[in-house]
Amino acid sequence: MARSRDADHLVAAAGEGDRGALARLISLIERGGEDARAVGRLTYVRGGNAYTVGITGAPGAGKSTLTAGLIGLVRATGEQVGVLAVDPSSAATGGAVLGDRVRMQDHALDAGVFIRSMATRGHLGGLALATPEAIRALDAAGVGTVLVETVGVGQVEIEIAGEADTTVVVLTPGAGDAVQAMKAGLLEVADLFVLNKADRPGVVELERDIAAMLDMNMHMGEWRPPSVRTVASTGEGLPEVWGTVAEHRAYLESSGELGRRRARRVADELRQIVLHRLELSVWERCRGAEFDRLRDELLARHVDPYTAADRIVERWA
Amino acid sequence: MARSRDADHLVAAAGEGDRGALARLISLIERGGEDARAVGRLTYVRGGNAYTVGITGAPGAGKSTLTAGLIGLVRATGEQVGVLAVDPSSAATGGAVLGDRVRMQDHALDAGVFIRSMATRGHLGGLALATPEAIRALDAAGVGTVLVETVGVGQVEIEIAGEADTTVVVLTPGAGDAVQAMKAGLLEVADLFVLNKADRPGVVELERDIAAMLDMNMHMGEWRPPSVRTVASTGEGLPEVWGTVAEHRAYLESSGELGRRRARRVADELRQIVLHRLELSVWERCRGAEFDRLRDELLARHVDPYTAADRIVERWA
Repeated sequence: MARSRDADHLVAAAGEGDRGALARLISLIERGGEDARAVGRLTYVRGGNAYTVGITGAPGAGKSTLTAGLIGLVRATGEQVGVLAVDPSSAATGGAVLGDRVRMQDHALDAGVFIRSMATRGHLGGLALATPEAIRALDAAGVGTVLVETVGVGQVEIEIAGEADTTVVVLTPGAGDAVQAMKAGLLEVADLFVLNKADRPGVVELERDIAAMLDMNMHMGEWRPPSVRTVASTGEGLPEVWGTVAEHRAYLESSGELGRRRARRVADELRQIVLHRLELSVWERCRGAEFDRLRDELLARHVDPYTAADRIVERWA
Repeated sequence: MARSRDADHLVAAAGEGDRGALARLISLIERGGEDARAVGRLTYVRGGNAYTVGITGAPGAGKSTLTAGLIGLVRATGEQVGVLAVDPSSAATGGAVLGDRVRMQDHALDAGVFIRSMATRGHLGGLALATPEAIRALDAAGVGTVLVETVGVGQVEIEIAGEADTTVVVLTPGAGDAVQAMKAGLLEVADLFVLNKADRPGVVELERDIAAMLDMNMHMGEWRPPSVRTVASTGEGLPEVWGTVAEHRAYLESSGELGRRRARRVADELRQIVLHRLELSVWERCRGAEFDRLRDELLARHVDPYTAADRIVERWA
């Protein structure tokens, strides 16, 4: 009760531009549990207008610099922009990843920009469930563009970046990046390749490698992901990147693919929430004296694991 | 009925030394589903005598050569030995990993040796559930020692190798292997380090790095994992490896840790089976016309994902 009233108040305040309230909402989401669900119930029905852009690529590719540059381009249109920096690996240290993001500081005083790093708190479901919730908190607060930047290219990070409306994969010349990207599964999620640090040797080879990989990919739809050269540190090429994001958005909208993507995404998320909820009840039911007795019967080979599982599952039926 | 009779027949034949029957049992286990469960129910209650040794480490560390050498040592005691080579990555090609394992061929004509590679068939639960089942099929067939070798050091592979009674981590000098091992989570599962290719430069540094990492590890129990130098290709050090495995086994048995490990393992597996079963019912229930209607309500923002999940979960209550 108190919980739902608090969330209600925070969502209303965030909707009126209170950035502190928005930050607290996202903290509740990160923490998971009942509070996060209360926030999720409120923000979901208030949203639906934000466009999300995922930005992924190996560490050191210049994703933060690119993101900082794109913030400026979005802000020039007058639209509010949110940035979520997703770092599954920071659970161990608990550290935020934004500390060293000097260029992000350029936007620290702009009330139209909301920057937040998200780390997993180690709970089940983790960032894969928390990130769409955080996007919706921004969405409900009237933020029109959300950039979701991942720190690395782990499985969770690629999955999260790949669920954006447009996914940007950042590669750099001379690092064998194209092959690494393919191995990591980045090719499947890319709507657009940014070849950053394009003033370095090897950019022509990188373009050629990407083209070759795209030619080999049988699952290609109507949109062939273009490559855009940038030098993010000087801002070179960034307007072209944002222009290509806009082209991709126009393609998604006119082809009906945006609706299909979002339908798939919401169905996947619903399945994940159902599964997550069942997982929690498995951990709850699979402990205690009765469970220990069943385990001891197993150890004594009086029962097999499938029969034991039947006994536990029967209680759900 | 027919299914259970078939499994019954195969389990009986495998118990009488029929290697073809044993191979067919493991194929049924790999395929998953009802047949696998029928096999599992039968083998579980017939087993409990096999000792399992996990062998993991980066590709190229010489795990297959080491495994082939250990087979010979076990066979010299007269005991039957089984080898499961686990390769989660081979799903795409469907290829067996044993084709290039020339040294394994030395044992191909020995009826006391059973070698099998296992790849995931892509179904839910996958190798994490299939491997303990395959171990039990060997166990029920009277195989006293099961070596479980993983091809790489992915999360699933480390998890599988780590669930053995004794887990051997194979490292090589000069490859920054100690740090990689720590990052991959190998330190937590290691009961014994094999420093293979110990005739190469850097073996002293590798030993020092391992010692330093062990000193940093706060979670160490009474057993400090020893390091054994080997040159698996010449057989050097292999008797010491097997001797150390025997010491670890004696430690586990005398300290009561073997019983505790196996209790934890069987409890974990029971939870996994329960979870896997619930996952299957999630995929079953989260599709069809009714699910699509719920998804469309979500897309229209008439309902939030948590309320939608409530509606689905309620049917289990």
